Amino acid sequence: MNPLLHEIRHKPMLWLLVFVPVVLVAAHAVPERHTLLFVLSVLSIVPLAGLLSHATESVAARTGDTVGGLLNATLGNLTELVIALSALGAGEYALVKASLAGAIVTNTLFMLGASFLLGGLKHHVQEYNKASARLQAGLLFLATVAMLIPSAVSTADAAAGAKFTRSLSLGLAVLLIVAYALSMLFSLRTHRTFFASAEGGEAGEAPWPMGLALATLAGVTVLVALVSEVFVESVQEAAVTFGMTPAFVGFIVVALVGGAAEMASAFSGARKNRLDLSVGIALGSASQIALFVAPVLVLLSYSVGPAPMDLQFWPGAVVMMLIATLTAALVTNSGRSAWFVGVLLLMVYSIFAMTLYLLPPRVA
Amino acid sequence: MNPLLHEIRHKPMLWLLVFVPVVLVAAHAVPERHTLLFVLSVLSIVPLAGLLSHATESVAARTGDTVGGLLNATLGNLTELVIALSALGAGEYALVKASLAGAIVTNTLFMLGASFLLGGLKHHVQEYNKASARLQAGLLFLATVAMLIPSAVSTADAAAGAKFTRSLSLGLAVLLIVAYALSMLFSLRTHRTFFASAEGGEAGEAPWPMGLALATLAGVTVLVALVSEVFVESVQEAAVTFGMTPAFVGFIVVALVGGAAEMASAFSGARKNRLDLSVGIALGSASQIALFVAPVLVLLSYSVGPAPMDLQFWPGAVVMMLIATLTAALVTNSGRSAWFVGVLLLMVYSIFAMTLYLLPPRVA
Amino acid sequence: MNPLLHEIRHKPMLWLLVFVPVVLVAAHAVPERHTLLFVLSVLSIVPLAGLLSHATESVAARTGDTVGGLLNATLGNLTELVIALSALGAGEYALVKASLAGAIVTNTLFMLGASFLLGGLKHHVQEYNKASARLQAGLLFLATVAMLIPSAVSTADAAAGAKFTRSLSLGLAVLLIVAYALSMLFSLRTHRTFFASAEGGEAGEAPWPMGLALATLAGVTVLVALVSEVFVESVQEAAVTFGMTPAFVGFIVVALVGGAAEMASAFSGARKNRLDLSVGIALGSASQIALFVAPVLVLLSYSVGPAPMDLQFWPGAVVMMLIATLTAALVTNSGRSAWFVGVLLLMVYSIFAMTLYLLPPRVA
Repeated sequence: MNPLLHEIRHKPMLWLLVFVPVVLVAAHAVPERHTLLFVLSVLSIVPLAGLLSHATESVAARTGDTVGGLLNATLGNLTELVIALSALGAGEYALVKASLAGAIVTNTLFMLGASFLLGGLKHHVQEYNKASARLQAGLLFLATVAMLIPSAVSTADAAAGAKFTRSLSLGLAVLLIVAYALSMLFSLRTHRTFFASAEGGEAGEAPWPMGLALATLAGVTVLVALVSEVFVESVQEAAVTFGMTPAFVGFIVVALVGGAAEMASAFSGARKNRLDLSVGIALGSASQIALFVAPVLVLLSYSVGPAPMDLQFWPGAVVMMLIATLTAALVTNSGRSAWFVGVLLLMVYSIFAMTLYLLPPRVA
Repeated sequence: MNPLLHEIRHKPMLWLLVFVPVVLVAAHAVPERHTLLFVLSVLSIVPLAGLLSHATESVAARTGDTVGGLLNATLGNLTELVIALSALGAGEYALVKASLAGAIVTNTLFMLGASFLLGGLKHHVQEYNKASARLQAGLLFLATVAMLIPSAVSTADAAAGAKFTRSLSLGLAVLLIVAYALSMLFSLRTHRTFFASAEGGEAGEAPWPMGLALATLAGVTVLVALVSEVFVESVQEAAVTFGMTPAFVGFIVVALVGGAAEMASAFSGARKNRLDLSVGIALGSASQIALFVAPVLVLLSYSVGPAPMDLQFWPGAVVMMLIATLTAALVTNSGRSAWFVGVLLLMVYSIFAMTLYLLPPRVA
Repeated sequence: MNPLLHEIRHKPMLWLLVFVPVVLVAAHAVPERHTLLFVLSVLSIVPLAGLLSHATESVAARTGDTVGGLLNATLGNLTELVIALSALGAGEYALVKASLAGAIVTNTLFMLGASFLLGGLKHHVQEYNKASARLQAGLLFLATVAMLIPSAVSTADAAAGAKFTRSLSLGLAVLLIVAYALSMLFSLRTHRTFFASAEGGEAGEAPWPMGLALATLAGVTVLVALVSEVFVESVQEAAVTFGMTPAFVGFIVVALVGGAAEMASAFSGARKNRLDLSVGIALGSASQIALFVAPVLVLLSYSVGPAPMDLQFWPGAVVMMLIATLTAALVTNSGRSAWFVGVLLLMVYSIFAMTLYLLPPRVA
């Protein structure tokens, strides 16, 4: 277990792992202290997400480029998936949907924008692989259309409408997963040379041995699942204590917690002038949540949740996803970036965050 | 009549012409067999549209580039115009509007997407004339704005609203036709060199002699008109039999039937790596329907239909047209294509088709 | 005062200054003659706006590039600001909002489109600085998102909704001003070389001496304020006389009157093949109104108006601003222009103008 200990010793973020046992004990000892449990679970998920991400990359690095890319692409958002599954099991559909929409918007605007800003403060102008950014923006656009259509054509007849939305969501979920699979065939197989730079630089750290990586992957996933349950149970009541609306919690807080590890990688890539890495993580993660995590949750809701989940989002969330996607498409069009491009993205994100923070509780 | 017979012998699609007399006889013999009449009329319109398209091109090829381009641009969607006129005469405004919106969406997403996919499966990367695609996308955008505005500002006051929508639609129709005429002045006259490649390669097959072409044009138009009447009368009831919603029929079935001949040309162009031809047919046809066929129908509705037709579409159709236009604008921005670009367009189209197929009957 | 007199003698537009005293006298002599007062105040504002614009440029030219650019950027739309302040003081919030939205749309579509058309009729193809146009389009996009969000997430609960909209608008106003300030830091300081050509050519005419410029700036601002009051009081009733809807007046008439001087410069730049100048004035002016004038009015409404003003616009206006911004973003993407691009922009503007002209009175 040497590399794991070495990793923990040299990454201060991982020292937070000490909170994992604390939160699990506290959840049984003081189940009514929601605010405390919320803070402890956030502090535990961040380092676990970091370990999970490193373990996935290590397995990917050992299995060759195509299989590795595939693994990265399916397990890269395992944290988000596990948190959402906990919420799904608890029947918290509004929280699941808010956290999905929030993760897409946060990755597209905040993670990408902060990468552009942090990179731009150090480097005058930065270039990145246009083809890769365009593919991701196209995938995001497709997913946004899929999430927009059920709201756009929703019917006044409530009973017929519910049935329609449910079958449509099932069909859309299958369609998005097929599109995602084909996009991997495209970028990892038939046209991989076009996306070379974005894929090439991703390793960075020395990968772990296979056995350790797989064991970490399994063990940490279980831990994330346990902590997520505490997180989901405590987050809504804690939000009230902090004066935050449920919409703000689902959209912003859960998305930032779930994506903390990826953000660390994206920001460090931008500072090192490896913007391809940052753009790849930010947009790749957003499109993965939209085209893989969200549809998988719809399919799983038929066996896990108390009732099937559909893809009909709160109209405000649809507008935000649409704007985030359009912004990403317009901004990445040139393949160049300077600090103000990051400011623009962060400003759009701030508009959304401010709106959700001020929103009267019963709306979203 | 040798070239016509030669054409028929060598194009299996034209063997379907045998169904033309069959459907006309059947319409009188068994007027209540809607499903049979629907199938027969579809089988007849497809080859007639093919002949019409070839005759138009032949006349165009004999009259010099500018007049020819003009002819192609005004008669290229004669089939769609005649079908819509039949529906207009029958007072089927919902069907007319659905088929207009459907033709725009089908040409922009399905015809373009399938061309990219079929071309991309044979050729690694394909290039096409950006300037031409941009002009068409700009025209489509203008038309979409014109069709979006009446819904966006519609008033709660029903009586005032109807009068407002009617005068606005009349004004918009005139404006769109003027814009279309100016776009031809631009692309065929003042800046024709910019659009060279798209226009240049369009001939392909040997044109017919002028007399034959004109006679075919006249004769086939009459036949299309007769068959269209059967088609319009039977399509709604046949739809119920097949379990399809009226929205799906108008949007998808009519559009695919009306555009079958053009699709054949676009797909064959893409396989031959003449993507300019495919993009020109797909987007040119969409913008022609939006800026010429639709406004002409509004103007003709004052003399043909039982009441004037306006340009206020079902909101779902407006959203679909807007998304289709935006998709085309974003996708054609680079002037390059690979197979996955086609998949993206087809996926967006599938989302629409699936939505319309599942939609409860009374909505659209 | 020689340069001022020289200016007046050589610019026929400035001969309209004779109407300034006329309208101020008439406002006291015949306060009930609304139509007359409206016409006189329009005829007076046009030359005053011209003087104001020249005085600002002169001060800017004497103070070095950065301070000068800053001055231009803050005082460039002084006319619009003073007119809006008059309306704000009179509690005419609908007029203020309509004129803000109208100025954004008019500058983006009409001023830019007419520049492209006038330039394109003389020059076959024109090029301009893409980077500059992109920055302005990005800023406009940000502002449009800020003005769209309050409507998109507005709540059914009226009382909670009003409070929410008011606090959100305050936050958005501060955010937009910060974004605007950062955009100036970006374009005038850290990355000024990217925007060189757009800034470089702006002088054109010989600047006035500092004293004259400052005195003109002060004196003319007072005159504009006095005439604006007459204008705001008379415009609504005059509109009824001319058969124009209030929406049309606020959106189109006020915007054209307030921007007359800038349009003259933009059009003359386009004819002289200095399209950077035209694009800079048109989009720069639009983004300045959206990111500086509008938020400043929200802040000032807390001390000037009878009640705080929010940023929630009529949905139709939001749609128009969004379309105008998208159009500008798509059109300026290539950095090249020909006459038909101008036609496209003007056509979109005509659709809006026609819609507002026909709109039944109580809607907007």
